[in-house]
Amino acid sequence: MARIVALLSGGLDSTVLVAYLLDRGHQVDVLSADYGQRHRRELEAARLVAAYYRLQHDLLDMTAVGSLLSGSALTDHSVAVPDGHYAAEQMRTTIVPNRNMLFLAAAGGIAQAREAHAIAIAVHAGDHYIYPDCRPPFLAAMREALRLATEEPERFGLGILSPFEDRTKADIVTLGAALGAPMGLSWSCYRGGLSHCGKCGTCYERREAFALAGVADPTDYVDQLTIFADPTVPA
Amino acid sequence: MARIVALLSGGLDSTVLVAYLLDRGHQVDVLSADYGQRHRRELEAARLVAAYYRLQHDLLDMTAVGSLLSGSALTDHSVAVPDGHYAAEQMRTTIVPNRNMLFLAAAGGIAQAREAHAIAIAVHAGDHYIYPDCRPPFLAAMREALRLATEEPERFGLGILSPFEDRTKADIVTLGAALGAPMGLSWSCYRGGLSHCGKCGTCYERREAFALAGVADPTDYVDQLTIFADPTVPA
Repeated sequence: MARIVALLSGGLDSTVLVAYLLDRGHQVDVLSADYGQRHRRELEAARLVAAYYRLQHDLLDMTAVGSLLSGSALTDHSVAVPDGHYAAEQMRTTIVPNRNMLFLAAAGGIAQAREAHAIAIAVHAGDHYIYPDCRPPFLAAMREALRLATEEPERFGLGILSPFEDRTKADIVTLGAALGAPMGLSWSCYRGGLSHCGKCGTCYERREAFALAGVADPTDYVDQLTIFADPTVPA
Repeated sequence: MARIVALLSGGLDSTVLVAYLLDRGHQVDVLSADYGQRHRRELEAARLVAAYYRLQHDLLDMTAVGSLLSGSALTDHSVAVPDGHYAAEQMRTTIVPNRNMLFLAAAGGIAQAREAHAIAIAVHAGDHYIYPDCRPPFLAAMREALRLATEEPERFGLGILSPFEDRTKADIVTLGAALGAPMGLSWSCYRGGLSHCGKCGTCYERREAFALAGVADPTDYVDQLTIFADPTVPA
């Protein structure tokens, strides 16, 4: 058993990540970050998931940094959240510059302070297309940087676990269902209303993942009908 | 001319870094971070230095993360700031886990949002002995991670400038004097009183650097008499 500090956004992927780490017998602490995201509703989801598993949960106020990471539809309310397929070009407006480096740095410091053995992040293969800080080479460079930032790497370990980095979101839903992860408590919608809008890129991706996995989707979508074609796949 | 986002702690090294970057004709924005450091007095010094050069200055509230980086004499008030030479073993209590990764991550994101060309940090050779996240291999790994976190590295550049990484603090004082840097506005003392204590590791290092450089020290030390021997150098 290892002690692991996991990043829990409150989304589907990190909720299943926590279930996966617990299933492997690890002690898991979870961290969530408020960086001024429009969909702050996900932080409540994170709280619910942490409470479900009775985990130590710290919410990090990073709104000061977040307010300077402007130009993203997720933090700048003057930029609209796009509808449509997740892979579409307009989803680039949802990039928050260097967000994962910031989260990994915070988790790495907290893990060192607690003498934890590793940190964990739920990036998956579907994130790679749009987000550079979700790709395996970035994670490899961060592993090296974190190892070098630690005085005694052989003692604390402090690797970065990213068990889903080559898996699809449908794989994650399949795993979550097998582990009994509380996926219905998780939140994906970038619009952050009372219910999932069903039309933004992350809602589309969530719906598609449950459909592909053949798992009943517990989510209450406002719009359950609109289906977006993937513009990168010929009709 | 490049646009550079520089980390300005308010200490001697980062004050001279700003003078150095401006002297080379760059546009410089500065960032300071409140991570709950005992010597918050340095943030006022950063404000004075930024005002002296009329720079855009953002103060980042990172106290939420800082409160979880416990066990350091700099953030945990139950741990005493040690007296004595900077190189001594007890200075290890002044390590704040992963601090520089956190600062570089924040600066990297803000630089991307502003389409700046690079970020800059004032680590120097004297930091290497104690602080792993000040050493050249760590900085090299962070350069690679930051390059990979950027969608268009060739466009934005976004390197990490650390022009003092192989220089001593005495070199920095010599350079600062040549550039007319406002070193008297900077703050070093880890105890964070109204005046520099003159006895803690950073005060000792500061006094020694001015003495070795043969530059008049503008600092008002409470204790100007005690001289500590370097325990790593045979008498």
